[in-house]
Amino acid sequence: MQIAEPLQIAIDELSKLPTVGRKTAQRLAMHLLKSNTKDVENLVRAIGDLKTKLRFCRICFNLSVDEVCEVCKNPKRDHSTICVVEDINDVMAIEKTNEYNGLYHILGGVLSPLSGTGVESLKIKELMQRLENEKIKEVILALNPDTEGETTSLYIAKLIKPMEIKVSRIARGIPVGGDLEFTDEATIGRAVLGRIII
Amino acid sequence: MQIAEPLQIAIDELSKLPTVGRKTAQRLAMHLLKSNTKDVENLVRAIGDLKTKLRFCRICFNLSVDEVCEVCKNPKRDHSTICVVEDINDVMAIEKTNEYNGLYHILGGVLSPLSGTGVESLKIKELMQRLENEKIKEVILALNPDTEGETTSLYIAKLIKPMEIKVSRIARGIPVGGDLEFTDEATIGRAVLGRIII
Repeated sequence: MQIAEPLQIAIDELSKLPTVGRKTAQRLAMHLLKSNTKDVENLVRAIGDLKTKLRFCRICFNLSVDEVCEVCKNPKRDHSTICVVEDINDVMAIEKTNEYNGLYHILGGVLSPLSGTGVESLKIKELMQRLENEKIKEVILALNPDTEGETTSLYIAKLIKPMEIKVSRIARGIPVGGDLEFTDEATIGRAVLGRIII
Repeated sequence: MQIAEPLQIAIDELSKLPTVGRKTAQRLAMHLLKSNTKDVENLVRAIGDLKTKLRFCRICFNLSVDEVCEVCKNPKRDHSTICVVEDINDVMAIEKTNEYNGLYHILGGVLSPLSGTGVESLKIKELMQRLENEKIKEVILALNPDTEGETTSLYIAKLIKPMEIKVSRIARGIPVGGDLEFTDEATIGRAVLGRIII
């Protein structure tokens, strides 16, 4: 097989990305070849900047350009509430809703004995330090509703209990647009338990 | 929504790629963030090189690093056969089979009155010049078996006819691993007409 080397290399590199197979990599490479130079330069710069311009916020471990992230820096946000999440994807998911105006704390994972993630590898110690030093009124635990997430939530809730800070957990229930008939029993059970007076 | 700007820019740029939506772009960005710097540098360099290092071969219009592509330069290939294809993807598809050892000629499209592609916008004139100047014994037309491809094949075959050069067309028939029962009539018809004595 004789294909121009830069094209072959680009296909090889692109196919290393998740969700991108050989065929898609070839399609992406052909697309980039046909794109105008400025668009490709923008893409290349954006990817490069990911590694060079971003670091973790000193306070909440969110991604940040500066030492302290935009959320922690913003005086308009509610600095008395911390939302504890597993990773940065969760921050993005919550930010997209525009429903939350407090701060975050990114654990960097959840307790999982099977994959060897213990208390020390998560930012739990750093969370407790924040709770001691900042004036926090409420901690919202927004971890995934699976075994590891629930365990981690319970562990953190237990640690915070003696501190006279309100600890809440995001509601489990039927998703918006969901259908009672096709919802599993565990979810319906939680929805009934978590019912709200209207 | 407050997300670190370089991340937002990277997601925006990645989601401009074909087959990549917002969710996939976010996943790719997070993957790149977690990848080691060397891998990201390799990817960035490979994408950049696509635009800076590649150009079209002066002879066959294949992608090439030099003025003349690897295929045209290679003395081991059969320089008396030209395979005419629509675009570079087709060259890659044929090269992958390792069944063809001749040269190529990339038309850059097919005749299509509806989308305004006429004879002048294809590299047909350049093909005819090659046939006059090089010692070509056979031209293989490997265009897609659709209306535009067939029309273009017939047009080129007609032009070459007076030149005493063999013109062939790649076989239409039942794909390897295909099933007679589920093959459309047009394909079966072509397969019967194109039968080969064994």
